[in-house]
Amino acid sequence: AMAAERAVAMATCTAPVNIAVIKYWGKRDTDLILPINSSLSVTLHQDQLKTTTTAAASRDFTADRLWLNGAEVDVGHPRVQACLLRRLARKRRGGSEDAAALSLSYKVHVASENNFPTAAGLASSAAGYACLVSALARLYGVEDELSEVARRGSGSACRSMLGGFVQWQRGERPDGTDSLAQQVAPETHWPELRVLVLVVSAEKKPVGSTAGMQTSVETSPLLKHRAEVVVPERLAQMIRHIQERDFEGFGQLAMRDSNQFHATCLDTFPPIFYLNDLSR
Amino acid sequence: AMAAERAVAMATCTAPVNIAVIKYWGKRDTDLILPINSSLSVTLHQDQLKTTTTAAASRDFTADRLWLNGAEVDVGHPRVQACLLRRLARKRRGGSEDAAALSLSYKVHVASENNFPTAAGLASSAAGYACLVSALARLYGVEDELSEVARRGSGSACRSMLGGFVQWQRGERPDGTDSLAQQVAPETHWPELRVLVLVVSAEKKPVGSTAGMQTSVETSPLLKHRAEVVVPERLAQMIRHIQERDFEGFGQLAMRDSNQFHATCLDTFPPIFYLNDLSR
Repeated sequence: AMAAERAVAMATCTAPVNIAVIKYWGKRDTDLILPINSSLSVTLHQDQLKTTTTAAASRDFTADRLWLNGAEVDVGHPRVQACLLRRLARKRRGGSEDAAALSLSYKVHVASENNFPTAAGLASSAAGYACLVSALARLYGVEDELSEVARRGSGSACRSMLGGFVQWQRGERPDGTDSLAQQVAPETHWPELRVLVLVVSAEKKPVGSTAGMQTSVETSPLLKHRAEVVVPERLAQMIRHIQERDFEGFGQLAMRDSNQFHATCLDTFPPIFYLNDLSR
Repeated sequence: AMAAERAVAMATCTAPVNIAVIKYWGKRDTDLILPINSSLSVTLHQDQLKTTTTAAASRDFTADRLWLNGAEVDVGHPRVQACLLRRLARKRRGGSEDAAALSLSYKVHVASENNFPTAAGLASSAAGYACLVSALARLYGVEDELSEVARRGSGSACRSMLGGFVQWQRGERPDGTDSLAQQVAPETHWPELRVLVLVVSAEKKPVGSTAGMQTSVETSPLLKHRAEVVVPERLAQMIRHIQERDFEGFGQLAMRDSNQFHATCLDTFPPIFYLNDLSR
């Protein structure tokens, strides 16, 4: 029975989406996914929006495979590869193969489902990569450094690794080891806060975040000023609003920052439009 | 006959609209109408869009009066008052009343008509004030300093006092005497250039330019950076594109600058929206 069970090891996790109130838009390192500014988000409850991911490993699998909402996707994508965790698991095990532990040479099959529109501005990749990393971590019995791994999948995914109010610190190091998610306040800090998600359009965004923010970094003179001057001030201010549960200040600053993010999209060339007459 | 003619002296002028390719948005002095950055525009031909203004002076008139598109408007508005030219005319005449010249003590009646939508983003106030100043200047026989006077009516009006490609220099002096319109190139410099005006909406703007730009100056962190850092570079670049008749460079920079203007509107709080799904 043990042998049969071990032939397919499985782990299932769920992960939440997060909505940034101080926005992340722009990378200083596109490979390591290091941002040009820190950001801050609210992790939503999983009762409404979530990703569910099951990871399975078996000596009978001949290739790593990945399904997203029922459709197979390319597992060779560098972002997926960065999240497969084998290197980290190997490091944790100190290089020695424990006979009782799951073999890292087994191929994995992963299935991931969102119960909400994908790529429509609802942080599906944040929840998706956070969930992928969590499921594989459970499968391999790895625990720490996970927000740094999730960040390699999708920047904002690191923020979905924690609940409540979460800051993703820009960091200073070129290797990204200090560009991590950190909880500013737990979900219990402000239980009256509610987040309404109003779906104006469930279409895929016209320009994806990865390509869009890269074009912004290259062409928007305003984005640089935002990242260097405006965001550091706003971040400190937003943390104060959260600590003091000042809804007026919190809400207004969140709107100002969201508008400024859209402003830098408009300042990008060619311009990026994520607002329409209805969402405005 | 002479006496009867002089009982009502009249002058009629027309004035063109101008479309900024490096935008003016924000005053550093709201009374003198001094801008936070220089701007550059193309003056359009008057065959299509124009303001026509007739100014009349008579000893029989009991009050200054002004009609805009057939409806009487308040002549007491400081901007209108700043354009009535009596002070300048008095200065020109050296304080002495010339018996042959029109008496400056006569009240004036002014009628102004736009042959295009008013306050819909088509520079109606630019053409309007330029035309008011021109008509009164003709009435009073005054010639120079006119762009400075028109600027006191509406900032961009100073650019409508000249044809072709016109720069409105920000200036440095607190009294505004160096904040003037200057021709960069005459209309004959680039005769192939055509400007298409596509009216997406002829409605009045939801927020007027005067109130809107003041809110932007007070609340948009990006506008300050635009005025101080971005515009000076772009202005020099735009003048080169015009001199070289580089349409690709001219058109792309005009679009980038227009988008950046709309970006600073979006960065204003509360945000200002002059674009809709169609104009985008």
